[in-house]
This record gives sequence, structure tokens and C-alpha cells, in this order.
Amino acid sequence: MANEAEKGVVGSRLRDGEYVSLLMELMGEHIKKVGRNINKDSVNKLVEDILNANAIFLMGAGRSGLVARAFAMRLMHLGLKVYVVGETTTPAVKRDDLVIAISGSGETRSIVSLARIAKEEIGAKLATITSNPESSLAKLSDTVILVEGKKADEISDVDYLERRMMGMHTKLTPLGTIFEITSLILLDSVVAELIARTGASEEELKARHSTLE
Amino acid sequence: MANEAEKGVVGSRLRDGEYVSLLMELMGEHIKKVGRNINKDSVNKLVEDILNANAIFLMGAGRSGLVARAFAMRLMHLGLKVYVVGETTTPAVKRDDLVIAISGSGETRSIVSLARIAKEEIGAKLATITSNPESSLAKLSDTVILVEGKKADEISDVDYLERRMMGMHTKLTPLGTIFEITSLILLDSVVAELIARTGASEEELKARHSTLE
Amino acid sequence: MANEAEKGVVGSRLRDGEYVSLLMELMGEHIKKVGRNINKDSVNKLVEDILNANAIFLMGAGRSGLVARAFAMRLMHLGLKVYVVGETTTPAVKRDDLVIAISGSGETRSIVSLARIAKEEIGAKLATITSNPESSLAKLSDTVILVEGKKADEISDVDYLERRMMGMHTKLTPLGTIFEITSLILLDSVVAELIARTGASEEELKARHSTLE
Amino acid sequence: MANEAEKGVVGSRLRDGEYVSLLMELMGEHIKKVGRNINKDSVNKLVEDILNANAIFLMGAGRSGLVARAFAMRLMHLGLKVYVVGETTTPAVKRDDLVIAISGSGETRSIVSLARIAKEEIGAKLATITSNPESSLAKLSDTVILVEGKKADEISDVDYLERRMMGMHTKLTPLGTIFEITSLILLDSVVAELIARTGASEEELKARHSTLE
Repeated sequence: MANEAEKGVVGSRLRDGEYVSLLMELMGEHIKKVGRNINKDSVNKLVEDILNANAIFLMGAGRSGLVARAFAMRLMHLGLKVYVVGETTTPAVKRDDLVIAISGSGETRSIVSLARIAKEEIGAKLATITSNPESSLAKLSDTVILVEGKKADEISDVDYLERRMMGMHTKLTPLGTIFEITSLILLDSVVAELIARTGASEEELKARHSTLE
Repeated sequence: MANEAEKGVVGSRLRDGEYVSLLMELMGEHIKKVGRNINKDSVNKLVEDILNANAIFLMGAGRSGLVARAFAMRLMHLGLKVYVVGETTTPAVKRDDLVIAISGSGETRSIVSLARIAKEEIGAKLATITSNPESSLAKLSDTVILVEGKKADEISDVDYLERRMMGMHTKLTPLGTIFEITSLILLDSVVAELIARTGASEEELKARHSTLE
Repeated sequence: MANEAEKGVVGSRLRDGEYVSLLMELMGEHIKKVGRNINKDSVNKLVEDILNANAIFLMGAGRSGLVARAFAMRLMHLGLKVYVVGETTTPAVKRDDLVIAISGSGETRSIVSLARIAKEEIGAKLATITSNPESSLAKLSDTVILVEGKKADEISDVDYLERRMMGMHTKLTPLGTIFEITSLILLDSVVAELIARTGASEEELKARHSTLE
Repeated sequence: MANEAEKGVVGSRLRDGEYVSLLMELMGEHIKKVGRNINKDSVNKLVEDILNANAIFLMGAGRSGLVARAFAMRLMHLGLKVYVVGETTTPAVKRDDLVIAISGSGETRSIVSLARIAKEEIGAKLATITSNPESSLAKLSDTVILVEGKKADEISDVDYLERRMMGMHTKLTPLGTIFEITSLILLDSVVAELIARTGASEEELKARHSTLE
């Protein structure tokens, strides 16, 4: 169907409902490609950082902050001591803690500023999920996982097909959409890695899942 | 590589870092399959509900609640009047509003209870994203989008390969992982559909994006 | 000035800015009166519940939920294991935990429903801060702290003066305002009680205060 | 009873439960004193800022952030267009909007940084509730409401009695407690002022109150 899209609909508008189908296929393809190209050493470093930390703090702004929370919730299910920066009962970060920042641009001001405090003033370990290896966050970090978002040239199929499909410059995956989706799936795959290494069972995870909801 | 996984590693443990890569490929493949099978009529109904509503209210518990927020943020970027149930300045739901609930099981107690108030007491329109067409939420709803999560038999590749890969019953995508990921991507594809229909440009979306972060 | 208000301005409108001053005096007076009449046995029971719990879970809807969070944050500063129901990394409630609910009416549906799960299904201890001793929440609870809100007849000075001042039926402290304010101050006084009993120093509290803000 | 406290218990420990009662009286007295001394011109300026703004944005960190939300909720009940910075559907701040910051020290880094963006880059109006008239936030702001917290010398009764009562230096109202409580009550009194000026009825407020909770 991706081929049909490339051939058939250049410059024309799809029928109602067809964008959903096509976009899901494009995003699925993008995820697979990122999965094939992921740097296993960085992933292993992040996994070690997580398993060695006293406590883990997640942070991110906007939708990247939601991805941070989704990952934090699973780390809690795994029995780790984990907090989201900015939530009510999040304590002070200490020297032997790990702070994980999520930011596509790596330049979100509040996150860079908090990362600087965590790294330079407190001396905690800092890991970053970003699209931008040259960003302030990436440069500050001990561990960087590069997630190719919309700016990556080599994984440009979504952008490319979008433009062909529409015959115009409308952006169907606006702002950080591709980065956020890919980061969420990457981090859920890190959860799989943690489950495989620790041998955690679904029953154990379920027993820690909030009972008041 | 999925083929390698199927053949080579049955019953054996992958090397560190390989789970991330493999899981991303499996999830990407799952997304593509759901995209191909998605019910376009339901999607079109949801898109119409959104465009016709006076205001839109999103709700969900746990990670489904995070997916609800990620979608709400994009609807705000599109210039729609949208709120997340439970946030500070969310007003009363009215008769001509749309409430969108996200719940894999369709039985999360607090969400079912709020859906009942919205639908039966207030008379608002109710749309649900769920894996379970027989659930309380699905039965209450005007519009149901079925997202095949981990329980679906016909899209069982993730579960199947997970088991083969591990040679045991550890679950690498625990609880609602597959449902949550697939719902997020489905709803970002609904955003694409809304952009295509309304002709919204990325500049317009960006201008509405929070400037204080 | 309260006397001036009673005499001088019956039926007339105050000058701009004078309401703030007068309302603060009325609320301050209300707080003092509640402090004098507070049931010390209930307070001691709550303090014991808190010190004996394995973990403490706070919950409340709307502004009562904000009061719940303000109290939770101080319990964290005191070094206790404490969570807010609905936040990202809040784990499952267990049998030896304490759940504290805040609700003026004692009938907020979602809170009553969660309290029932905590108490009847899980077997946790339940404490409630409410204005209504006959409410569903009060009846479910092991410990009830009664905070006289706007409905109490014997502490009616705010309502009374408001009406006189305005010569009409406008309500200057709408909805649960008086309950919420009084509950916050009551719970900050419980913090004082906990500090006095445990001998916690401000330095210890400060060291636990979030460093990323 | 304040007199009894001053005379009788110097250097001695109160009985269990008596701290709650005494602290509520001290805080009530503090609120009354702040109410008598409040600068009516600043309050009027804040009220005008609120009534003239296109949209209002509230922000604060930690417990000051909870006070910000409690005020935001009431402004929503009053029918104003109001958002909390950092919540999901909060849009971009524009030139004709009002940003209200709450910070006892006036130096909370993330808040000062956001205030600078709002004021210097966007050109929005900035109002601050703080204890510190010399702070970065106060200097940036168009409107400053000074709320005497624990650092104020002239309203030192809580600190003074605390010390006498305990015969030691334990702080019963730790960190920003007095500032936060006083700010909440001040802002609820500003709500009263807004109700008086606009003639809003409790029925109107109630009709806007969240129906899903």
C-alpha cells in the first residue's frame, strides 16, 4: 500500500479515513527502521544506568513529558524507585541517582536548566533521549540515546511520502510527533530488555499496578 | 530479522541490547497491521464527532490517561476547545460536548463511572478507544474505535514471538503496552486526518504550542 | 474592623479592595474558632494512623485534591512513604497502608468509589477529612476529622457577615472555599504535631525538598 | 489560649493533639493581621489586571504551584479564560495575556525563567505574589502583591511563639508553610472581590464546576 500511495495519489487528496490507515503504516515502518538501526551500546548503557541507580527521575516538557511518565510508570511496576520531576511527592535528587531527560530538540529551556542542576550542582548521572546529538542536553549527558525524529535525513520516508501524498507542504505529523512516538516505543522496548534481564513476571508487575483507578 | 528471531533463538536468551531492536520491529509490524485493518467508518465517525463538538473532553486512567493527554494537546494545537478530565481548569461537560474515553479493557471503574455521568446524566456524546467491543464502555458509547491490543487473536505476532523467543512465559510487553502504543499512533493518525481535512499548517499548530516550557 | 463592617456597611457595597481585607479577617477568625473546637482525639488518631502506616495515600477531587497534595508533599519532606492517588508512579495500595480522603461533602463519587475499594476490597485503613459526619465517606472510615465548612451552623460568622455586608445573597466564599482553606491549615497543623513528636528539624525537611524546580 | 501558651508552656512540650489547636489559632491570627495590613492598591491593580486580560496563566513550583491551581480553578468558575502553565491543553501565552507567578522567595529558578520569557520575549503582563519585594520576580513584574511569610519581621508572632512554646529551634511551620497558606487565603479573598464587582452568583459558579469527578 505504501507503493500505491507513492504512485497513485501524488498531488491528490486521499478519501476520508484513508489518512489514518496510511499514516499508521508509515509510522510502523519508521519504528521498524529505527529498531534495526538502534545503537545497542547506548541502549545497554541506559539499562545499566537504570539498574545501578539508587533512584530514577524522569523529566520532559509537553508530549515528551508524557512519554517520560509512561516510562516511569513501567519502572515503578518493575519495582524500581522512580519519580517524575514536578509531581507532588518527588524528593530531592541525590548524587547516586539517575536523571533521564526526554527532548527531541535537546534544547527545551526548562529541561536543560534542570539537567544542568542535576548534573553540575548535584553530581547525579544524566541520560538523555533526543534527536539532536549536538544539543545542550546531549552534551551535558553521560548517556545519550539518539532517536531519529522528523529531522533525520536517512529515515525520511514519512516526510517524503507525506509531501508526495499531499502534493503540498502540509505536515501530517506535526511538531515532535515522530520523535515522541518513537521514543515511547523505544522505552517500552527498554522495559522488555529490563524484564528479560531481571526475569520479572507479568504477575509481579500487575501486583504493583495502581489499585485505585 | 523477525525470521531470524523465529528460527534461531527459540528457547534461548538474546544478547543484551537485542531485545530493544527486536521489540521495536515487532511493534512496528503490529502498528502496520492494525493500520491496514482499521475500520475507516469508525474513524470517520470519530473525526466527525470531533469537528462537530462544542468542546472535547479526554479521559483515561494510568498510561491510557497519558495517551488521552497526548491527543488532547494536539487537538489544542489544532485550535479546538479541548480539556483533560481531572485537570485544574477543566469546566463542566455540557450536552453538546464530546467525551472521549481511552481504556484497553473498557472496564476501568473510574472511567466507566465518569462515562456514565457524561452519557446518561448530562447527555453528552461519548466515544471510546478500547480493545474490548463487549465492554461496559463500548456499550455506553456512540462511537467505538476498536484497537486490537494484546488480547486480539488475529494480530498475535508480538505475543507469539515473545513466547518463542524466550522459551518461557515471561511477557515482554506487559499489561496494556501494545494497546497504549497502538492507540497513541492511531490518534496521531486521526490528527493527520484532521490536518488533511482542515488544511491546518504546521505554522498554525506551532503558534499555539506552549511558549512557557 | 469586623464591628465596623457589621455596623456600617449593612446593605451597602464596600469600596474596591476592601473585600480582600475584610474576607481575610473573617477567614482568620474562622480558622481560630475551628482550632479552639477541634476534636483532639480524632487528631491524635490521625497522627497515630500516619506514624503506623507502611505507606500513606492521599486523595481528593478538585480543590480538595490540591489540599491532599499539599499535605502529601510535607509528609514526603518528613521522610514518610507517601503517594497521591492518580499520580504517575503511585503503586498499589496494600493492607497495611493508610488512605486519607479529603471531601467536604463526603459524597464526591470518584472518591467514595476509590475509598470503598481501599477499605472493603483491599482492607487498608481509611481516614477522612470532611464537613459531613453522616456522609458515605465518614461512615466508611476508621478515622474521621470533622472540619466545619460553610454548612456548620455554630461557626456561621463568615456566612452571616457576608450576607449583612452585601445586603444580598451573593456568596463571597463560593462552593467549598471555607472547607478547603480550613482543611489545609488543619493538615499543616498536623504536620506541626508530627514535627513536635518526631523532633524533625527544618534542615532535614529542606534536604528532602525537590531540588529540580 | 495564646496567652496561656506564652506563659505556661515555655520550654515544655505540649500534650499530644495540642499543637494542632495552638497552631490553627496562631495561623488564624496571622491571616487576620495580614488582612489588616494588605496593600489595597496592589490588590486593586491585580483585580484590574485579571478583568482586563485576554487570558490568564497561573504558575508556581511545589506547594506554591498548588495555590496557583486553586486560584485558577476559581477563576474558571467565574467564567474567565484561565490556564495553568505546564498542564496539557495550556496554549501559547500572547501579548495581551496576564501571567501570575506565585513564589515566596521570588527566586524559584524555573518560575523566574518562565516569567522572563513571558515578560521580556512575549510582552505579556506579569503579576507576582511573593514575600520578597527585592526578588528577581518582583523586579520583573508589573504588579506585585507582597504576602508576608515567615521572613517578615513585623508579623513574627508564629515564629516567636513557636520558639517559646518549644524552648528550642524546631520549626513547626517549615519551609514556605506560612506564605503558602496566606497566599491561598489572600487569593480566595481576591475571588470574593471579583464576585462582588461582577455580581457573579454561586449558581453560576456551580454550573461551571467540573461534573466529572
